[in-house]
Amino acid sequence: MGHNYSELLQWKKTLNKVQSVLITSHTSPDGDAIGSSLGLSHALKAMGKQCKVVLPNRGANFLDWMPGIDLITYYEEDSKSVQALVHNSDLIVCLDFNALHRLGELCETIEHASQPKVLIDHHIGEASWPAINLCQIGASSTCELVFDVLQQTAEKSSWLSLEVGQCLYTGIMTDTGSFRFHGTSPLVHRVAADLLEVGVKPNQVHEQVDDSFTDGRLKMFAHVLLHNTNYLCDGQVAYSFVSAKEYEEFNVTSSDTEGLVNQPMRLQNVRISIFFKIAEDRIKISFRSKGEIDIQQIASKYFDGGGHRNAAGGISFETWEKTEAKLKTIFQDFPFE
Amino acid sequence: MGHNYSELLQWKKTLNKVQSVLITSHTSPDGDAIGSSLGLSHALKAMGKQCKVVLPNRGANFLDWMPGIDLITYYEEDSKSVQALVHNSDLIVCLDFNALHRLGELCETIEHASQPKVLIDHHIGEASWPAINLCQIGASSTCELVFDVLQQTAEKSSWLSLEVGQCLYTGIMTDTGSFRFHGTSPLVHRVAADLLEVGVKPNQVHEQVDDSFTDGRLKMFAHVLLHNTNYLCDGQVAYSFVSAKEYEEFNVTSSDTEGLVNQPMRLQNVRISIFFKIAEDRIKISFRSKGEIDIQQIASKYFDGGGHRNAAGGISFETWEKTEAKLKTIFQDFPFE
Repeated sequence: MGHNYSELLQWKKTLNKVQSVLITSHTSPDGDAIGSSLGLSHALKAMGKQCKVVLPNRGANFLDWMPGIDLITYYEEDSKSVQALVHNSDLIVCLDFNALHRLGELCETIEHASQPKVLIDHHIGEASWPAINLCQIGASSTCELVFDVLQQTAEKSSWLSLEVGQCLYTGIMTDTGSFRFHGTSPLVHRVAADLLEVGVKPNQVHEQVDDSFTDGRLKMFAHVLLHNTNYLCDGQVAYSFVSAKEYEEFNVTSSDTEGLVNQPMRLQNVRISIFFKIAEDRIKISFRSKGEIDIQQIASKYFDGGGHRNAAGGISFETWEKTEAKLKTIFQDFPFE
Repeated sequence: MGHNYSELLQWKKTLNKVQSVLITSHTSPDGDAIGSSLGLSHALKAMGKQCKVVLPNRGANFLDWMPGIDLITYYEEDSKSVQALVHNSDLIVCLDFNALHRLGELCETIEHASQPKVLIDHHIGEASWPAINLCQIGASSTCELVFDVLQQTAEKSSWLSLEVGQCLYTGIMTDTGSFRFHGTSPLVHRVAADLLEVGVKPNQVHEQVDDSFTDGRLKMFAHVLLHNTNYLCDGQVAYSFVSAKEYEEFNVTSSDTEGLVNQPMRLQNVRISIFFKIAEDRIKISFRSKGEIDIQQIASKYFDGGGHRNAAGGISFETWEKTEAKLKTIFQDFPFE
């Protein structure tokens, strides 16, 4: 793997010329989105740049400990400030997405900004809008790519601090399922080694990210596995669901379902796990698959979604009954190997 | 970190002189015990040695895929053959334990064998019995140490095959909780990178080790979290239990409880998790702690056990009622920071 040489050269030249860099990422930012945004911001600041991070909206609570999180401005909460920050920047770096609509309500502001735009991303897809494209489909995470870009921009000692390490480690760790998923290359482990070298403590990051369950959330997970999980295709497909009823019963919110889709994947027989979050006007869907099964195709073909081969998202605007029926039809003749 | 130079020199000299190496490890062998035994065996064979692995008894089913597993001889099943193999060996390598009683019924045979004994281990404790001691307390896993010893014994290209990689990766991955626990150093990640370099696929190993649940086992986990988990010290200590009743209800066996102790650790408030496996004549206990809390001290002081700072085991020969009462007394005034 390696970035396109001419794009990298252009990035270095452009960065040299600018003073003020604006960094942004997608709605409902996850560990990789926030980790890469804050990590790059800390690194560029260490290299003498002014840096601002703006996001469409807030991420999950379990990322609140990340160094620099308080300096992020959210469009949902303060659109005027975000517009001013965009306006006053010399360069816009977009991280961890490639379709502009993933910026949500922030999309228009970024799309119409006149500054050159840099894109660093690892998702499937192509983007014609960036002036500088540093994407690598198949990389483990955007944080891995940010590390690589920075490493090729300047001496590690000039930017790799504990703060940068904590941010980039969080993105790599969350997006690889802790060095598990397809995309975890030898390089990913070597990057992790470098991040630990500056003082990142894996057990502390894991504790903050993974061990943030409330009692209600843990019980809700258990409840869904015991009572709200069904199977198709002789148990090769598991599908689970939650709705307002569970949120109330276990005193949790919609974002507490994060990670639930992975639970049925622990079953030896299960090849695909699908999780439905039933809201009043829509159903948000998470997909996971094992091995060679490309679940992203199902997400994009039937549920207006996308993502990676083994992890994708989608949406349905039909009722739960109709959505469930559609699911059953899709998997009626699914060609498992 | 590094091995004692004179011990390493002695290991290299001794290995040069011998033809037939016997490798063994502890009862109820886990991923690190079996991984290090088979990994070392494959490597020494590649270096021209004859190698046999003998174990007191079998490990969990989810390790059955490991390359070479069918060549292991178990004392529990064929003590005569094991005794002959020990007798015919020139050198005995003991892995992943330091107290000989952890060999169970195999203890006497090994203890009285006249061959020189090598010990490679990472657990807390000291052993005076090995002729060559290559222990490093605090290392992530015995597999990490085996990699290090091999690396210092001969050129990587002469022993590092895919098979060796799969075995050592499994031990590192299981003993570090997938690169999470205290002990996961930069070196551990660099070793993992080398193992991936020879073709180890992390997602495949994880799938085989982690995703081997039966439906009953997943439901039993959920049931224990919903109904058999209690808390002490304002929720900082979680303790869970299972007995024959649950095994029957969910059609699982005692070994299916592996990993259950980690589940309550996901609660933000929980600092210590303790899991009791109630059998007719004894209660086996697993301990986990976060951060600086040394749970190994509690395990050894009150429950005849031992292990690591954040993960230990123990036993009680009293009734469940008495054991639970003892637990409550221990934590009545526990000095949480």
